[in-house]
Amino acid sequence: MIQSLCASRAAELLMQRDNITLLCHRRPDGDTVGSAFALYYALRQLGKEVRVLCADPLPQQYRYLYGPDYTPSRVLDWPVEYVVAVDVASAELLGELEPKYGRMVDLCIDHHPSNTDYAALTCLDGEAAACAELVAAILTAVGLPLTGKIAECIYTGLVTDTGGFRFSNTTANSMRLAADIMESGVDTAAINTRIFESKSKARVLAEARLLSALQFYAENRIAVMPITLAVRAETGVTMEELEDMAGIPRRIEGVLVGVTIKEHENECRISLRTRDCVNASEIAAVFGGGGHRCAAGCTIRASVEEATRLLIAEIQKHLPEETV
Amino acid sequence: MIQSLCASRAAELLMQRDNITLLCHRRPDGDTVGSAFALYYALRQLGKEVRVLCADPLPQQYRYLYGPDYTPSRVLDWPVEYVVAVDVASAELLGELEPKYGRMVDLCIDHHPSNTDYAALTCLDGEAAACAELVAAILTAVGLPLTGKIAECIYTGLVTDTGGFRFSNTTANSMRLAADIMESGVDTAAINTRIFESKSKARVLAEARLLSALQFYAENRIAVMPITLAVRAETGVTMEELEDMAGIPRRIEGVLVGVTIKEHENECRISLRTRDCVNASEIAAVFGGGGHRCAAGCTIRASVEEATRLLIAEIQKHLPEETV
Repeated sequence: MIQSLCASRAAELLMQRDNITLLCHRRPDGDTVGSAFALYYALRQLGKEVRVLCADPLPQQYRYLYGPDYTPSRVLDWPVEYVVAVDVASAELLGELEPKYGRMVDLCIDHHPSNTDYAALTCLDGEAAACAELVAAILTAVGLPLTGKIAECIYTGLVTDTGGFRFSNTTANSMRLAADIMESGVDTAAINTRIFESKSKARVLAEARLLSALQFYAENRIAVMPITLAVRAETGVTMEELEDMAGIPRRIEGVLVGVTIKEHENECRISLRTRDCVNASEIAAVFGGGGHRCAAGCTIRASVEEATRLLIAEIQKHLPEETV
Repeated sequence: MIQSLCASRAAELLMQRDNITLLCHRRPDGDTVGSAFALYYALRQLGKEVRVLCADPLPQQYRYLYGPDYTPSRVLDWPVEYVVAVDVASAELLGELEPKYGRMVDLCIDHHPSNTDYAALTCLDGEAAACAELVAAILTAVGLPLTGKIAECIYTGLVTDTGGFRFSNTTANSMRLAADIMESGVDTAAINTRIFESKSKARVLAEARLLSALQFYAENRIAVMPITLAVRAETGVTMEELEDMAGIPRRIEGVLVGVTIKEHENECRISLRTRDCVNASEIAAVFGGGGHRCAAGCTIRASVEEATRLLIAEIQKHLPEETV
């Protein structure tokens, strides 16, 4: 059990420090960048020196939060005085920043119940839908109003981690925080459009190809979507643009297990999404992977056809008895 | 300007009456059925006789609100004592119920600023994102808690008319109402899954076909999606399942005008969705149609090819000068 600081204690610590390095997790998403930049702008407003670091490039999609010119500056000569990780559940998730920063995180602000307690101090709220909710509580404790750029950052974290307030992690608190941000004058509808209503032509054409190639097994209870190297080459779609495709096969009525198979040079990376009656992590574990009950993943060193064959054989053992 | 009743006055009127007929608009959506059934359950709970009527069949999609067995009962021998229209902006929108009920609506509860003031009394909130928000205010004025089935109905109206809290009509009030409903114990995530995360196999295959057939014009600033009789026949998708397809072409980055062309026996029905710099209603008006700035429609009595040709020629006149 992690000894968690409350938001107001975390706020006090941040107020006392300067030259603050904020760390995002690798393969950054809207919540880690939203949380980091909300703190970045807030602490800058208080006159502090702050920088944001991430092992991987920050997504184009959230560029409105950090501007086209943002580059993690002064990486080499920056005084490492106070290190804060946001939305980073374990040191490993720092990616290439782990060797340097993994053991020197002073404060971790997080919402993952699985947090490994790797930081000197941790401010954890396992009930929060997004880390941004906790950051909002910290900024409120500092006495900063949630407005302008800071509010845009918080909203972005909130809306992405809740899947647009649709996922079951969404709470009444998430909704009320969004309400407050709307009232502060942020154009939340414009952010929603950027995040949910905007797809590249390449992505749309790739989606058409992938949907046409859906395969169904076990009386339509299993749907498999192969994302082959060929489709990626032909449509020019990037892996980043395909990030959220894994949810698609399970969305089809009657499908209990949705499988996405991403072909790479020497292996296939598998995403499993299941309805509650089938345990995805048990299936993934058979292939050396893991995850949650309804979302898990694994890697299979085989062709797409062979991986499909192996997966279908295994998944069929996990399907419930058919009701007559 | 409509003389609008406040929610508490509407509540008083409903409390005084019995044998209440609730009217939905034709081609019913989540808000008209959610609003009607919230009132239905609430008024039944108060011991009143109530029925819900609609010119068209109630959508399968919202069956969880009214049960598989719901049929508008006792249509012929029911005493027409007090008639309430919900989410119905004009008598015409009653569809086939108009001849009988169009001139005898005692109370209209609505959120469309365009309401034509056809009812004896109108309770209108043009700021509300959904009619269900206003119904919630009325039920609260009655003193009824928003829980159970009633809360499910309200949430359904709210979440559908706001496009899952994504559209620009969503307000802080919408979010706070959703928060209250979540706290009452309603499984809002399950409702979200039903509404947004569930598509028939036929719909998914039709979508693949339609996305593959997207046509681009004017340097990708116009995207056209023809929905032909052939695609509908081959995939078995219903028109109801294709309802929300009109938004797809505009979602593509760079597209200023998204056009959906639904082929019917003797005509094409056109949906236009534009970004703010192009006025959709002006384009629709050229073909005898109309609508709003960013969403409009018209009917063209021609083949899909000919309709496309006519539309592209007209739309090009409305595109902004290209920035070099």
